[in-house]
Amino acid sequence: MQEFTKFPTKTGRRSLSRSISQSSTDSYSSAASYTDSSDDEVSPREKQQTNSKGSSNFCVKNIKQAEFGRREIEIAEQDMSALISLRKRAQGEKPLAGAKIVGCTHITAQTAVLIETLCALGAQCRWSACNIYSTQNEVAAALAEAGVAVFAWKGESEDDFWWCIDRCVNMDGWQANMILDDGGDLTHWVYKKYPNVFKKIRGIVEESVTGVHRLYQLSKAGKLCVPAMNVNDSVTKQKFDNLYCCRESILDGLKRTTDVMFGGKQVVVCGYGEVGKGCCAALKALGAIVYITEIDPICALQACMDGFRVVKLNEVIRQVDVVITCTGNKNVVTREHLDRMKNSCIVCNMGHSNTEIDVTSLRTPELTWERVRSQVDHVIWPDGKRVVLLAEGRLLNLSCSTVPTFVLSITATTQALALIELYNAPEGRYKQDVYLLPKKMDTNGRITMTSPHEPRNSNRVFFKITFIFFLLLSF
Amino acid sequence: MQEFTKFPTKTGRRSLSRSISQSSTDSYSSAASYTDSSDDEVSPREKQQTNSKGSSNFCVKNIKQAEFGRREIEIAEQDMSALISLRKRAQGEKPLAGAKIVGCTHITAQTAVLIETLCALGAQCRWSACNIYSTQNEVAAALAEAGVAVFAWKGESEDDFWWCIDRCVNMDGWQANMILDDGGDLTHWVYKKYPNVFKKIRGIVEESVTGVHRLYQLSKAGKLCVPAMNVNDSVTKQKFDNLYCCRESILDGLKRTTDVMFGGKQVVVCGYGEVGKGCCAALKALGAIVYITEIDPICALQACMDGFRVVKLNEVIRQVDVVITCTGNKNVVTREHLDRMKNSCIVCNMGHSNTEIDVTSLRTPELTWERVRSQVDHVIWPDGKRVVLLAEGRLLNLSCSTVPTFVLSITATTQALALIELYNAPEGRYKQDVYLLPKKMDTNGRITMTSPHEPRNSNRVFFKITFIFFLLLSF
Amino acid sequence: MQEFTKFPTKTGRRSLSRSISQSSTDSYSSAASYTDSSDDEVSPREKQQTNSKGSSNFCVKNIKQAEFGRREIEIAEQDMSALISLRKRAQGEKPLAGAKIVGCTHITAQTAVLIETLCALGAQCRWSACNIYSTQNEVAAALAEAGVAVFAWKGESEDDFWWCIDRCVNMDGWQANMILDDGGDLTHWVYKKYPNVFKKIRGIVEESVTGVHRLYQLSKAGKLCVPAMNVNDSVTKQKFDNLYCCRESILDGLKRTTDVMFGGKQVVVCGYGEVGKGCCAALKALGAIVYITEIDPICALQACMDGFRVVKLNEVIRQVDVVITCTGNKNVVTREHLDRMKNSCIVCNMGHSNTEIDVTSLRTPELTWERVRSQVDHVIWPDGKRVVLLAEGRLLNLSCSTVPTFVLSITATTQALALIELYNAPEGRYKQDVYLLPKKMDTNGRITMTSPHEPRNSNRVFFKITFIFFLLLSF
Amino acid sequence: MQEFTKFPTKTGRRSLSRSISQSSTDSYSSAASYTDSSDDEVSPREKQQTNSKGSSNFCVKNIKQAEFGRREIEIAEQDMSALISLRKRAQGEKPLAGAKIVGCTHITAQTAVLIETLCALGAQCRWSACNIYSTQNEVAAALAEAGVAVFAWKGESEDDFWWCIDRCVNMDGWQANMILDDGGDLTHWVYKKYPNVFKKIRGIVEESVTGVHRLYQLSKAGKLCVPAMNVNDSVTKQKFDNLYCCRESILDGLKRTTDVMFGGKQVVVCGYGEVGKGCCAALKALGAIVYITEIDPICALQACMDGFRVVKLNEVIRQVDVVITCTGNKNVVTREHLDRMKNSCIVCNMGHSNTEIDVTSLRTPELTWERVRSQVDHVIWPDGKRVVLLAEGRLLNLSCSTVPTFVLSITATTQALALIELYNAPEGRYKQDVYLLPKKMDTNGRITMTSPHEPRNSNRVFFKITFIFFLLLSF
Repeated sequence: MQEFTKFPTKTGRRSLSRSISQSSTDSYSSAASYTDSSDDEVSPREKQQTNSKGSSNFCVKNIKQAEFGRREIEIAEQDMSALISLRKRAQGEKPLAGAKIVGCTHITAQTAVLIETLCALGAQCRWSACNIYSTQNEVAAALAEAGVAVFAWKGESEDDFWWCIDRCVNMDGWQANMILDDGGDLTHWVYKKYPNVFKKIRGIVEESVTGVHRLYQLSKAGKLCVPAMNVNDSVTKQKFDNLYCCRESILDGLKRTTDVMFGGKQVVVCGYGEVGKGCCAALKALGAIVYITEIDPICALQACMDGFRVVKLNEVIRQVDVVITCTGNKNVVTREHLDRMKNSCIVCNMGHSNTEIDVTSLRTPELTWERVRSQVDHVIWPDGKRVVLLAEGRLLNLSCSTVPTFVLSITATTQALALIELYNAPEGRYKQDVYLLPKKMDTNGRITMTSPHEPRNSNRVFFKITFIFFLLLSF
Repeated sequence: MQEFTKFPTKTGRRSLSRSISQSSTDSYSSAASYTDSSDDEVSPREKQQTNSKGSSNFCVKNIKQAEFGRREIEIAEQDMSALISLRKRAQGEKPLAGAKIVGCTHITAQTAVLIETLCALGAQCRWSACNIYSTQNEVAAALAEAGVAVFAWKGESEDDFWWCIDRCVNMDGWQANMILDDGGDLTHWVYKKYPNVFKKIRGIVEESVTGVHRLYQLSKAGKLCVPAMNVNDSVTKQKFDNLYCCRESILDGLKRTTDVMFGGKQVVVCGYGEVGKGCCAALKALGAIVYITEIDPICALQACMDGFRVVKLNEVIRQVDVVITCTGNKNVVTREHLDRMKNSCIVCNMGHSNTEIDVTSLRTPELTWERVRSQVDHVIWPDGKRVVLLAEGRLLNLSCSTVPTFVLSITATTQALALIELYNAPEGRYKQDVYLLPKKMDTNGRITMTSPHEPRNSNRVFFKITFIFFLLLSF
Repeated sequence: MQEFTKFPTKTGRRSLSRSISQSSTDSYSSAASYTDSSDDEVSPREKQQTNSKGSSNFCVKNIKQAEFGRREIEIAEQDMSALISLRKRAQGEKPLAGAKIVGCTHITAQTAVLIETLCALGAQCRWSACNIYSTQNEVAAALAEAGVAVFAWKGESEDDFWWCIDRCVNMDGWQANMILDDGGDLTHWVYKKYPNVFKKIRGIVEESVTGVHRLYQLSKAGKLCVPAMNVNDSVTKQKFDNLYCCRESILDGLKRTTDVMFGGKQVVVCGYGEVGKGCCAALKALGAIVYITEIDPICALQACMDGFRVVKLNEVIRQVDVVITCTGNKNVVTREHLDRMKNSCIVCNMGHSNTEIDVTSLRTPELTWERVRSQVDHVIWPDGKRVVLLAEGRLLNLSCSTVPTFVLSITATTQALALIELYNAPEGRYKQDVYLLPKKMDTNGRITMTSPHEPRNSNRVFFKITFIFFLLLSF
Repeated sequence: MQEFTKFPTKTGRRSLSRSISQSSTDSYSSAASYTDSSDDEVSPREKQQTNSKGSSNFCVKNIKQAEFGRREIEIAEQDMSALISLRKRAQGEKPLAGAKIVGCTHITAQTAVLIETLCALGAQCRWSACNIYSTQNEVAAALAEAGVAVFAWKGESEDDFWWCIDRCVNMDGWQANMILDDGGDLTHWVYKKYPNVFKKIRGIVEESVTGVHRLYQLSKAGKLCVPAMNVNDSVTKQKFDNLYCCRESILDGLKRTTDVMFGGKQVVVCGYGEVGKGCCAALKALGAIVYITEIDPICALQACMDGFRVVKLNEVIRQVDVVITCTGNKNVVTREHLDRMKNSCIVCNMGHSNTEIDVTSLRTPELTWERVRSQVDHVIWPDGKRVVLLAEGRLLNLSCSTVPTFVLSITATTQALALIELYNAPEGRYKQDVYLLPKKMDTNGRITMTSPHEPRNSNRVFFKITFIFFLLLSF
């Protein structure tokens, strides 16, 4: 079992950069958390657990939480109508009959709805978590109770992480023919450890930036012997993950951590890309006075035309109540800026990188850190001034807010459709390449998917399921 | 001690109607809750507790929570700059030196800031809770640790409630000369039980609708021998409690309970008064499609001019994703409406009354209730349709969201100023009447306060503290 | 006829303060203006004109413009559905049969729709203009052609003005029994010159601030022997004339005069009352960066909570592109401010008073005035800096924009209803007093009207026509 | 001179599709129009005119209008700060010294500012109009008076059009070395008629879709012997011409033609591309209730998330007050739709094509057309129903509104920079190809321009003038 520690460095890094969980476990309303503390400290790997049907083909924290997890899944189903309608329409047909899917994603109520949809469409699924912290234990329990082979719990060690993945892939008499991955770890494990399984895979669906990057590297190196779909770069995902999602999560994240009133507050938003646009629209609408910093002239011009003052951070840093970064750059907010902020200024990050705020510069002896709430630190200057730092500079929308179920539903439905397409595609439709989801449908409702590595138009393939169908069902 | 149960009926009713706490105890971020469960079941009245200075002139749940409570107070101070600046400016002068204030309010981090401000200005304070559920135990502990005579805990019995009030008033060698009340129970207790104390009171400041109503009744009956200020009906309080506060809390309340995405949702808001205007503005800004029902023609016209479709509830009930009531009327959403809602429709109430949604009609055998989260029930129809009912139809903004500290700061500062004014007013400035805070200042920055029972302009009194001063400091 | 010059001073003043015409004559689209220049210079009083039916019971500029005026009236009818629906519903019943109405209002396409509605409901009408500049000649011609006794043209002299009014009242064999007035001149003329007629008047409906003021003075002096209705202070009129109307006319007025792009412009709005709120909402929505100056603390607080920075004018005067006054005060924008504005800054007034901008201070030798377009002056400083002054500081919304027909429709319908009510009210329902239109209807759809001079509730009278009926018809 | 009619068909078509002028001549405030009617009918080609310096090197309608035209130019300068600042900064350096530019654009106050800027930077200019209707005669006069060789007037014939172009190019002792074109007619004329001149041209800057299309065709055919810059597809131009410009012009166009009040109106906007987004944002902000029709799923989803109801046109056609097309498709509004509209419904087109509304279907005997104002027709059904058709279905924003000077300033500055770059570029920097303006600057403030016909990154050229510099100056 010690072999699972062979990938320590990379995983270590990855985990750090993802330790901010998408789970709703921390949220106000989830009663799940209370169970954590009362749980004993025995590793799930050493427990003997059985679901009500007598199966022990899973490994979760506590199978007894299943009922509570089932309720969380039912709540999630309420706002995932696209996926539910796909489930209802296609379950007679069973387009995934015979599919043996190994999956590695966050294990949340929303992914549970995806997994159970895949099962309803005929697939057999074995699942592990793509992040050692993000699993909702009660949801994992509910899946296990429902018969899904799930291997995941909150607070896995590195070794646990790879052990869980391995348990998904390595099972006598069962060989995976599809992969659904988020981050590329599962794909990498199968590729490295089970090359014979890898060759027989009919298709990979990958959601994350990192995972897609690794697929392209494989492809470049000529080692990708399987068609793969890049779900990450689809238009809907980009718009939802950034503009629409952040428009809501900036409010949610600030409110849950600080109870701050938005009306009348002066806010500076660094960066006016899609994330910044979402943040600014929401804050302006709720009565905040919003300033923008932006170095891209086109984005700066858009900010102007949208009615925001474009400033240098230095000009307003003394007067603002809230500082939000979403530039994608490093050290946008420096120690010097932090020194000049007024008392009780709130500082947080909505951008991709954890380093937009130079948090390291605050870890000096003259400053006192006081953890006042979960995800909320007061950093106290010698003169008593306090700066309110959220999530230690990590992504606020992931740390302190929930991703709306509806957003996850869009992505999950896309993943399900991609799996169906890859599994059912006739020989030759997809080559050993990475495919993008399309921007446009043709007039027959068919969606054109192109591979970026080949000349456009030369290799048209068709994704027959009407994309519009499920989008319109969502409303 | 049994005498405290003499007021059972009214208090009982009152408590029920206020069981929805304003406390941030239930909020996502408050770590307070975990301590509750671990506390023993011994009544605070039977405990012997002493603070670090050796005083035991208080009665709280657990003095050991003081440090955590102090942090909550410090967080609150960050967003109460008006009050803090009043504290700083006036603490040299000590305008409340000699004031002996008995108070009865919610005991939260925000009121703690008010109480400590009153102390800093020279007052001696004794305090109890105006609601048996709303006390933040850790905040009460912090106050006790700081030397305030506080008598309050979460989960008092009726008998406890009156015992605490009595402990505030009834102390050898100390006689109250000012009252700060929220609900009128303290005032009533002093009036009934300690008529000699009541006669010597210099002034009463009352915040609630109920309390103000009781003061007017006393006044009408010729029994109000003390000047009183009605803080409830001040313009700032009305605007903040309704328009500005609800604009934020509707989003917060819906998000924390359901994680619903607002963008693209169809919402019907019943009632376009100040509360409705706030809800609609926020939801529209975040991309919801909002319909209004309204019977007042002026409000309906405003809704039209603000770009909302004014409809009858029946016209849209089948298609909407969310139903929000804020009319102040009864049974606005009937069982018939509920029967016609689509699956997963969310129903909640932002209005004053608990009876806007006919929740009683849902307590019938054919419907199954499933409590999926705190404050969230799925009501399930025989055909499987679920309606998501929030807070059992009680006020969402109080049950499932926090009142922004800034809003409470406005009210608390007004209360402090009213106390200072009443305590320092020369003989004869205020008669034995109920005074309103004014809408307008005169050109000297003086605020005119009028008594509604006397002809306008005949009895001008001046409130010399410039209201604008602290308002502008707030920003 | 020389007697008509007996009222010179007051009229002179009045005309000055109203020289800003509400007429759409100046508007882009009105083709009326071209006819003016081609008209001969003969006074209408000296012309012999006859309409197609042979009547010459009118006095207008040029009866031949009737066809063009009829088209303008038809355009207006398109957006006055409330009035049209009142006309259709009530014309069988003829509730104004026997009414002999003398009217004195602006003569525009919109008032023509009102006058023709009154005729359709059974009234006989004789009409003059309440302003010497505001008459749309072609509309007056169309009314005359249709048989209305109208006496009005654009560019009347003072003597003409009173002659026209007199021609309305003074006719053999016809005695007015109702008055519809805008400004009080007609009422005053009847009161002074024809006291016997005045005594027999059944009711007066008055629209303007000035006229209402004069009615209250008469009432106070015990000389008002007729019930009167104050249409000016009705809620709908206030909201429409200020908030909703200015929200649109600020954009319209700026665009037609300067073609300025709003997006990205920095604008300071002085005053955040209803007019200011309307201006700010529109400009913010179109991408302008808006600052507010405000001395009223409640309004300042509202501005803050609506997301505007509240500043002192001096702080931003150097940087803004547009300055808009709507305070109701004098010299809000001083010469010093004007000296500090940047090149090409636009300055205009939306407030009630003509003196908000100290235009007089600009009439000094060192500054050059250049009239670049109608209503647009460049004031040029010695260093070449230009300030763009609109309408010489008079009301932009009246000078450079049109009042939307829909707004006028609301008022006109209210006037018609008030006339119907006063004409049909049973003896004793209305006393010799000034009545306000109500804010609220009772539950039977009846509207309560109260006289401010009597104690509330003591003199309830009912306005049975359901106000809601016509409001809802409007949409 | 008859030779100029050799290009009749294409020009004919072009003129038709552009007959909608961008000129502000029709606007409310322009006093220019009155002069047109009083002008004699003599063709400018037959007039002998001389400016005040004795030159007659121009051909305009009436040189006496120069003073009025100068004022229009001065007004335009007020809102073209980017261009003016470029003029000021670079006029010492004279980067266009030696440049001989022939231009063919709309001749308006704004292009006059561009032309005079080019002259100030050292260029010699000869100019004609790209549209036979769009010339502002008084501006052309002002240019002629200032010494620019301008050949243009409003209402040219086809023959005049080519004669003017030829007069620009064909002059003894002067040979053009730069072309600034809008539509490609000038380029085509030089290419066909003066091949020797064409070969020596250093660069072409082209603004229009059509012109760019013709350049790409030349390039494809291997006949483009000159580097050309495609200004049309620059990001700023696209955003400004569509989103930002239409956000303002939809309001302006509707107001100037119909005086309609937006608040409370129900509007359906067909198409949610950039134009539709601009229209919807403005109308929603002013209180209209907006519906969208859209067939592209991504755009439909955006509409949903922005809070608009996506409908089929049939669903709402009976209830809406305004119908706006901006799809780019044909017959979006059919006769059947028009038959079902309610009385006084306004119909207009903001889209690219003149055929979005099936206006032809309305030219049937049973319908009466009544021209009520310029650009406004009432189409009257047998039952009296009227539909208000604007600009006969042509582009409202060009026909009935002005393009904001600021928008034109962005494009004009881009054109000036492109000319400077092409004129000063060292040998070899630009090949005989069409270049796009870039989206991004590199970190040195340099803008990368790529040719779409060559692989990315292989042919990097640098545009050293910092784009951001003038953009930020604009605000």
